[in-house]
Amino acid sequence: MAKGLPQLQKFIDEFTTRVYKPAYKDPVCLVHTGNTDGWFKVVMTFCNPGEGVLAAEWTYPSAMNTTRPLGVTPVPVPIDEQGICGVGLRKILAEWDESARGMPRPRIMYTVPIGQNPTGATMEATRKKEIYEICVEFDVVIVEDDPYYFLQEGQYTHKSSRSISRTESDEEYIDNLVPSFLKFDYQGRVIRLDSFSKTVAPGCRLGWFTCNPLFAERLERQAESSTQAPCGLGQTMVTSLILNWQFNGYIRWLRALGTQYTQRRDFLLDCFSDEFHLEVEQEHKGAWKGNTVYRAYAVPRNARAMIEKTSARAPMFSFVPPTSGMFVWMQLHLNHHPAFPDETPVTLEMKLWEKVALAGVLFAPGRMFSCEDDGEASPVGSGHFRVSFSNVPFDTMKQAVGVFATEIRKFWVPL
Amino acid sequence: MAKGLPQLQKFIDEFTTRVYKPAYKDPVCLVHTGNTDGWFKVVMTFCNPGEGVLAAEWTYPSAMNTTRPLGVTPVPVPIDEQGICGVGLRKILAEWDESARGMPRPRIMYTVPIGQNPTGATMEATRKKEIYEICVEFDVVIVEDDPYYFLQEGQYTHKSSRSISRTESDEEYIDNLVPSFLKFDYQGRVIRLDSFSKTVAPGCRLGWFTCNPLFAERLERQAESSTQAPCGLGQTMVTSLILNWQFNGYIRWLRALGTQYTQRRDFLLDCFSDEFHLEVEQEHKGAWKGNTVYRAYAVPRNARAMIEKTSARAPMFSFVPPTSGMFVWMQLHLNHHPAFPDETPVTLEMKLWEKVALAGVLFAPGRMFSCEDDGEASPVGSGHFRVSFSNVPFDTMKQAVGVFATEIRKFWVPL
Repeated sequence: MAKGLPQLQKFIDEFTTRVYKPAYKDPVCLVHTGNTDGWFKVVMTFCNPGEGVLAAEWTYPSAMNTTRPLGVTPVPVPIDEQGICGVGLRKILAEWDESARGMPRPRIMYTVPIGQNPTGATMEATRKKEIYEICVEFDVVIVEDDPYYFLQEGQYTHKSSRSISRTESDEEYIDNLVPSFLKFDYQGRVIRLDSFSKTVAPGCRLGWFTCNPLFAERLERQAESSTQAPCGLGQTMVTSLILNWQFNGYIRWLRALGTQYTQRRDFLLDCFSDEFHLEVEQEHKGAWKGNTVYRAYAVPRNARAMIEKTSARAPMFSFVPPTSGMFVWMQLHLNHHPAFPDETPVTLEMKLWEKVALAGVLFAPGRMFSCEDDGEASPVGSGHFRVSFSNVPFDTMKQAVGVFATEIRKFWVPL
Repeated sequence: MAKGLPQLQKFIDEFTTRVYKPAYKDPVCLVHTGNTDGWFKVVMTFCNPGEGVLAAEWTYPSAMNTTRPLGVTPVPVPIDEQGICGVGLRKILAEWDESARGMPRPRIMYTVPIGQNPTGATMEATRKKEIYEICVEFDVVIVEDDPYYFLQEGQYTHKSSRSISRTESDEEYIDNLVPSFLKFDYQGRVIRLDSFSKTVAPGCRLGWFTCNPLFAERLERQAESSTQAPCGLGQTMVTSLILNWQFNGYIRWLRALGTQYTQRRDFLLDCFSDEFHLEVEQEHKGAWKGNTVYRAYAVPRNARAMIEKTSARAPMFSFVPPTSGMFVWMQLHLNHHPAFPDETPVTLEMKLWEKVALAGVLFAPGRMFSCEDDGEASPVGSGHFRVSFSNVPFDTMKQAVGVFATEIRKFWVPL
């Protein structure tokens, strides 16, 4: 009763098999009413009050708002530029102390592995295999919430040295995508959530689970006594579109979408490059260790006369260019702010956010993504903004970065 | 974030005010993804595990499938031809023994007051006022799940004396409808669930709550971390249709829908009248006391020669013609079956259901609607079928009643 249109079922079965190439022999696809509700159904079906779910220390707040009222507590896992990090995850699970933690060792891990919200982190194949094996060892079910999968944008290169030349076939395109956890899921412990919201239309509240038949049966029962099948009118529109395009047409659409997001990501970072003096460095410590990090100083790149002077000063913010998704995760070096430490990073983050918002530019303040109850997360002394490049026209983006640059420079001036 | 389209919001606000005339001063309308999910959200928001909800002894099984896995137990309330009966409800609440029942006195009552599923019962204004006052006295919140509200069909009269003459204005039409609980809700203790599924399209998973602002705020938060707003594509289609029709056009559509269902109800009962010898009697005892009950004997009405003989025999089944909705609730007098009491009513109900189903006619077996855990409900010695006249063409309905008549006659023959 909650299976939806047979035509859509057939398509998502084929799509999942051909694109994600699941390792488990008989995965089941089941429609749902969007990934947020998909995650809610997973929590309702798999978690009991008093239990915990593993999640990245910075994570999509709605996902945590789903669990907390049900008495299910997020357990923050340290992340790096690829998201959840194996060493950190293993340490938490291996050293789990039930009485100290006040709950049993978590059996569910929530993750947005591609273009993570908010950090933009993308988990490559090697890391996924590592994480999967840890989950096998500690019997953890992996919930792969993957709405940004097809927004894979590749490495950012400065516009001066950028070249666009994609000549790969559809099959090569698929093979070159960062794989889903499904590809490594030989045991059937992955529940993947796919959404049409980021590929066909936001707000269409339509997506699907891919998981083993036992899990799928339970999730279907859960849907039958709540949402039932997703909206028939919406299903019909999406299915008509997709059947009209067929598999190859839909893949072509997804490729074009990825290309469009690559252009948006590039344009946004180019704007930062125009407005700030950016220095590109290899990070030697912390979560971004080994990564190419962009550090922003107050002065625009073209104000050559000032570079010498400003380079000596500390940067205002840093970021790692995302390779997927729609977000740049800006780390604000608030410990370099003139008012620090008289004012805490939390206060400074909100003060700057307010000034930028009042000037007409809305970034998401980092604190709201903290998986910790007290809103704090690593690294100490920093703040964050999540900057979205999902749906802003280029000229508006340019203007917004200009406004932000003006506001942060004013904000950083010693009193 | 879960409020949906502003244009739809405006329409449902106006519609609710003009049609249901709520007594509470500032009721709030909030879209939801269909009444089944609306009820689920109510249970999630208002009930704790270990509590109970009051419900008609025969009730929509999906509603109970929603509560049971959450540890919320249905508490059956006796019904009569108008559904939940005041005397029965008061007795349960007044005599509630927390330790004997193993749970606190319920604070939530679930009811389908118009054309109830499965009994077809419709609760008139006087009864609603009575029930409302009992709920005030015992502080019970009334959940009015009312998808069949506009399928109000009026009294059934035999085709020989039937006349169709409706000359009422739209305002008169609205005033002549059986009122919603909202009309008596001076305290804001009613949560009404409206659905477009029975008025625009089944499966559109779109409807709305009407309740006090406090309840609405909580229900909206619940939606934000699960379904979010209903499918935008579906909302757009339904809203476009309604804005094109405007209020008066939509009312005209609803009136026509009611007329169509009246014709279907009449036609189905005419078919029973053709296939069976029906005797019309005033009931003197039991749940249908004071009602016009139709009793069906094996012989067709036109086989006049046999009436004398068959009238003397006991009837096979009885029903009260529904005045709303899409269901006839057929009470099978299985205690008059030749195999009784060697075979129980439960066994006989299923045996007959199987024979009818194998002959190509699908009724819903009564037992699945029992609110009691053991599947038994009153009256003792009887079985039930729920017969739907929602979407069957007239000739198919005729054929189906013929098949049923053949099967039940064969089934009733002494072995």
